[in-house]
Amino acid sequence: MVFVTGNEHKRREVREILGVELEAADLDIPEVQGIDPAEVAAAKALAAREALGFPEAYVLAEDSGVMVEAWNGFPGALTKWLLGSVGVEGLLGMLSGFEDRSARAVCVAAVVAPDGSVETFRGEVPGEISPEARGEGGFGYDPVFVPEWSARTYAELGEEKNKDSHRARAFRAMRGWLEEA
Amino acid sequence: MVFVTGNEHKRREVREILGVELEAADLDIPEVQGIDPAEVAAAKALAAREALGFPEAYVLAEDSGVMVEAWNGFPGALTKWLLGSVGVEGLLGMLSGFEDRSARAVCVAAVVAPDGSVETFRGEVPGEISPEARGEGGFGYDPVFVPEWSARTYAELGEEKNKDSHRARAFRAMRGWLEEA
Repeated sequence: MVFVTGNEHKRREVREILGVELEAADLDIPEVQGIDPAEVAAAKALAAREALGFPEAYVLAEDSGVMVEAWNGFPGALTKWLLGSVGVEGLLGMLSGFEDRSARAVCVAAVVAPDGSVETFRGEVPGEISPEARGEGGFGYDPVFVPEWSARTYAELGEEKNKDSHRARAFRAMRGWLEEA
Repeated sequence: MVFVTGNEHKRREVREILGVELEAADLDIPEVQGIDPAEVAAAKALAAREALGFPEAYVLAEDSGVMVEAWNGFPGALTKWLLGSVGVEGLLGMLSGFEDRSARAVCVAAVVAPDGSVETFRGEVPGEISPEARGEGGFGYDPVFVPEWSARTYAELGEEKNKDSHRARAFRAMRGWLEEA
């Protein structure tokens, strides 16, 4: 199985959850526009399979983001562009006029089989956007996302986040599928 | 010249500005993620040229969006996803916590020549986001964008908008290039 990622830490985390060998492919695949990480991850896995010359292997890609309920799921897969423009302080400013602060951290793993068929596995963690940024660990929206299973932000949780994160949930769902196959 | 659009009204408007024959190609090209319409338009034109089988013609695509200064240009080319999720009322709510309401309407026309070289032409209209939606005409952010050359929103301006819109400015810049070539 080939995992499209340039992040060695992520490759190890996913290999540990899946319990299979994972070859990392650090490809520069342009991501398609969309809110749902499932569409973006599936397009990424299909484009990577083509870039790799249609190998006789499973090609795995993932995409993630935070879906804000008051914004009907926005920014989702576009989270990195919002944060790249305004940072977490900007996100807090944009949400300041909304009462409902609930949100979901979402990750989708997409696998393309050698025959071209695509399977997606979704991991969601409901939670809320904190009133202010807290914690030194993590990246992206980690300092402002409080999963429902804790009172701390993802950034405050540090490594503990990985035990039951949206990414862990997506790849655990995928492990169940692997075990059945 | 082939113009990648499914919008006959837009094709006519652009043909009128450019003064050349334009064949419309209604292709379903997935747009790449990005804030700058120039990157998205160029990628669209290149992908369309490939989808059309590398014709001996110029391939033209455009992309546009509103760049909010307080958000460092966000959402730009991603405007349609923000509006598709929250509408103009949501955009106003997200901006309610920011004092600076200045924004730019931006359009970029990208042309790929038969030899594969790309030219981009940018049209920008500075202005601001109005406190509330006004006007029945237009679409997208038209009801909340007030160009600096008027006190009315794009939606209130109706057809008058086209006289000096971001799109008109981009294609006028392109016409200058065509006349020189």
